[in-house]
Order: sequence, then structure tokens, then C-alpha cells
Amino acid sequence: MRILDGKETSQALRNEIADEVVKFKEKGNRPPHLAAVLVGNNGASITYVNAKIKACEEVGFSSSLVRLSDTISQAELLHEIDKLNNDPAIDGFIVQLPLPDQISEKKVIMAVNPKKDVDGFHPQNLGRMALNMHAFVPATPAGIIELLDRYNIETGGKHCVVLGRSHIVGLPMSILMSRNTYPGNATVTICHSHTRNLEDMIRSADILIAAVGRPNFVRGNMVKEGVVVVDVGITRVVDTTKKSGYRLVGDVHFDEVSKKAAFITPVPGGVGPMTIAALLKNTMIGARRRVKP
Amino acid sequence: MRILDGKETSQALRNEIADEVVKFKEKGNRPPHLAAVLVGNNGASITYVNAKIKACEEVGFSSSLVRLSDTISQAELLHEIDKLNNDPAIDGFIVQLPLPDQISEKKVIMAVNPKKDVDGFHPQNLGRMALNMHAFVPATPAGIIELLDRYNIETGGKHCVVLGRSHIVGLPMSILMSRNTYPGNATVTICHSHTRNLEDMIRSADILIAAVGRPNFVRGNMVKEGVVVVDVGITRVVDTTKKSGYRLVGDVHFDEVSKKAAFITPVPGGVGPMTIAALLKNTMIGARRRVKP
Repeated sequence: MRILDGKETSQALRNEIADEVVKFKEKGNRPPHLAAVLVGNNGASITYVNAKIKACEEVGFSSSLVRLSDTISQAELLHEIDKLNNDPAIDGFIVQLPLPDQISEKKVIMAVNPKKDVDGFHPQNLGRMALNMHAFVPATPAGIIELLDRYNIETGGKHCVVLGRSHIVGLPMSILMSRNTYPGNATVTICHSHTRNLEDMIRSADILIAAVGRPNFVRGNMVKEGVVVVDVGITRVVDTTKKSGYRLVGDVHFDEVSKKAAFITPVPGGVGPMTIAALLKNTMIGARRRVKP
Repeated sequence: MRILDGKETSQALRNEIADEVVKFKEKGNRPPHLAAVLVGNNGASITYVNAKIKACEEVGFSSSLVRLSDTISQAELLHEIDKLNNDPAIDGFIVQLPLPDQISEKKVIMAVNPKKDVDGFHPQNLGRMALNMHAFVPATPAGIIELLDRYNIETGGKHCVVLGRSHIVGLPMSILMSRNTYPGNATVTICHSHTRNLEDMIRSADILIAAVGRPNFVRGNMVKEGVVVVDVGITRVVDTTKKSGYRLVGDVHFDEVSKKAAFITPVPGGVGPMTIAALLKNTMIGARRRVKP
């Protein structure tokens, strides 16, 4: 069994981006600039956004944090988005989800200029990605693809089983893995809450991508020997032995499944750091396009 | 075994559209107007386009055929598309594929205004469809969904195996069948030229959608009892006993597979007529939006 080390791989990718930023600035360009919009005071959201901002600083990007009250109206939020869309100093921005009930996530996603949509949530980016055109690929799937690529995981003709059909992970992941490229060319099955015989399907997987948000859902007896496991799950589980009061648990029972897997991502230290690195990569792409449209 | 009768179902759908056109005109609206662009003299393309124009007439639509020489330059074709984009008398239009070598299909697809893209080939429509938003769904997948719906085929939790990952059939079909709606909620596997153990995968299908363009590819011994089979294939095979010199053959060996299937589409008379009816339905949607944007 070998660990698919997201922390190490993410660091390698970030070092590459940092090198590119140096060269980018030497050519007289201002550094890439990522903005993050954070509405309200959700603890996990604050943690994620802070990690993204910190990652920007480390690679030499500029960054902005737009903090808004959780009582903000939809119209006001859309106005903030419009300002970012039209601000030539911003190469890309994200609106951290989830949003308060009074705001339609769909409306927000549609309001982001696809050319600054470094989260890749706009339908135009999803459609372009599906058709193999230049597009911002959502950060989590993009990070997973990067990880598989850097570990030279064989994907062509493999049976890739994706658990979960969310618009930001499962669905784009299933499309990416079936595209005619590497990583890709896998035979892809997408499973979800309606799937029957789920265990049989999981057992047939050569590559398993778990994104259901159910801690320790995939057990050792459910996978086959030699499977490649990517665990997207990241659930906070109460743990009074930790200073924070919780620990992060994936969708995969690591101790059991790692005994049979050829490769496996840990939680934390797997998909999470790759997601942030992929967001930086998307922002770098946005900045390159600013210079060479 | 029951036939999924595309001819009959298409006629029912077209009758409904014809009724709607009458009411639409009674409200003082001009009828829906579909334009078709045909480049060159490909025999199959001429047949398809003529069938679409005839179908328009039957339901009371206006229609236009724009015939262009196969020596047309890309710039000239894009100019024609632009005229259609900006013509308020046109509710939707299609550019019949394939196109001559000097023209990039991708550039053509991207040039069509997504709001008039009744073929649903523009990435914006594909992305919107994947995200469950209002969108023009490509006509063949839309027609298949309509057919499954009208025969009340159970899809939730079923294993749907899609053979082929083309951008206009296999890929959108796989997305549609996995969406959280009816028809949909299937566990979907998308297979293609790189798939290993293809026969095992086909044998595990509760619903099989074959879109590979290989005549009689799926044989009786490859499917399980009670499977629902949708045959998208339509290959011209030389047949000197026919006046035309050819006959149309599907991807599925009908005589063998129909003995085991619960439901099966014939070729011709299955998916083909549904595709045309779905194109009319998309055009009707376009016309409704013209009146109520």
C-alpha cells in the first residue's frame, strides 16, 4: 500500500506555482490576485477561506477577503459579485459555500463571470470541461486529477466508481475520468442514494472515489485487493481528546481499507490540500489569460 | 417483449405540439420557426434535414433551409450563423453535421447563440443541463428520455449502461440518466473504446443504451433477461435487394436481443423519430421563450 500524499504533492505543485509567479512578475506583470467572499461566521467556512488566503500568500499571489454579514440580502451579495466581476485587479474569485437561507446559491453561481470563476461552478465551465475545451475545472476534481497524474496511476480502461453525484465533486469527477485523455479513459460508474447493490459496485472498482460525506462509510470488506482509493469525505466528528473538540474523518475506513488498497489518500492530508493547490492553479491560469487573452 | 415504438410515440408528441401551435397562434403569436443549415451534398445529411423540415410543416412551424456549398469558408459559414443568431424571425436553428474539413465543428458550435441552440450542442446548454437548470437538451438524448417517460420505464436505482461517450449522445445521456429526477436516478456506467470486460458490463445492465455506430454489435448472449434496450445506432449497410441500395442497421442485433429484452427500440422506427420530435419540442420551447422570456 502506498499513500497518495496530498500534502506533499500539493506542496510540490505550490512550489511550481511560486516559481511561475516569480517569472510572471519579472516580465512586468502584477502578481495573480484571488479574492474570496465569505458570508457569515460558519466555523468550517472560516477555516477553509483562511487556508486559501494563506496559500495565496505563500505562492506570492495577492489576495483579498471580502467578509459580509450573514444578514446580507441577495441583491447586496450580487452587487458585491458584480464589483469583483468588473474589477480589473482581480483575476479570479470564489464565494465560499454554504450561503445563508435568504440567498440562492444557483443565482450566485450564475452571477460569477465564467472567466473569473476559479471554483469552476458556472455551467459554462462545466459544459466546456465536458466537451474537452479550456475551462476552469472545479478545484476538488482538478486536485484529484492532478494527484492521480503525479502518481502515474493507470486509469485507461479501469473501472472507476464514483460515490456521490454532487455538482462540485461527483458529477464533474465522473465526467473527467471518462474523457478521452490521461488521467481519464476509465469506464466510469456514478453511484448515489438510489443505487442498489452498492457494495457489489464498490467491490468491482479498480479506482474508488468516495464523496458522500458519511464518515467511515466504505469498509475493508467492501473493496477489492489492489484498489486505488481517493477519499473526498471530510466530516467533523466530535472528539473530546482534541484541543479543537473534533477530528476530521473521511468516507473511507482508512485502517481497514488501506490493508487492501494499492494506493489510498489519507484524511486529512489527501484531497484537501490538493483542492487548495488546484484553486491556486486555476487562479494562475486566470492571471495568464489576463496577460495573453 | 414490448417494442418501444418511437414512430408512434413521436407521432403522439408531434400531435401535442401541433395542438400547442394552434393555441399559440390563436394568442396572436407567429408560429415557431426552425432554420436548418446544410453544407454540401452528403446524402444522409440531406435525408435528415429534409425529414426535419417536413416535420416542421406537419406541426405548423415555419421553417427555412439554408443550403451552402461544401466549398464555403469557415468565415462565411460563421457569418451565416451570425445572421441567424440576430434574425428575430428565427426561434431556433441547427447546423447539420458533419461539416467539410476546412470548417471547425467546435467553432461552429460555439458560434450558435445558446438561446437558439435547439440541438443543445453549446457547452452552456450542456453545463446547464448537467446542473438541472433550464436548457436545450440535445435532441437524441431528449428523445430517449421522452420515450422512457411515456412507456413508464422504471429507471430509479437501475443499472444503466451507456455504450459510447460522444458529446451529442453518450455523454449527455449518461448525465441525464444519473440526475435526481424521473427518468433518471439510475446508477450509470459509461463505456467506450477503452473499456475492458465490456461484455460483463453489458450483461449487468438493466437499461442498455447503445450508441457506438457498429451494426449488430450487441448480441443476444451479451444481455440479461428483462433488459430495457435503447438502440441509437443507425448505420447504412449495403443491401442490393433494396431500392435505395442500403438498409439501416442498429448497434443491437434485434432478432437475438429482442428475445431476452423486456422493452426494445427497433431500427428504424425507434430513436430516430424521437430525435426529430425532440428537436420540434426544443423549437417550441424557444418560441415560448420569445413570447415570455
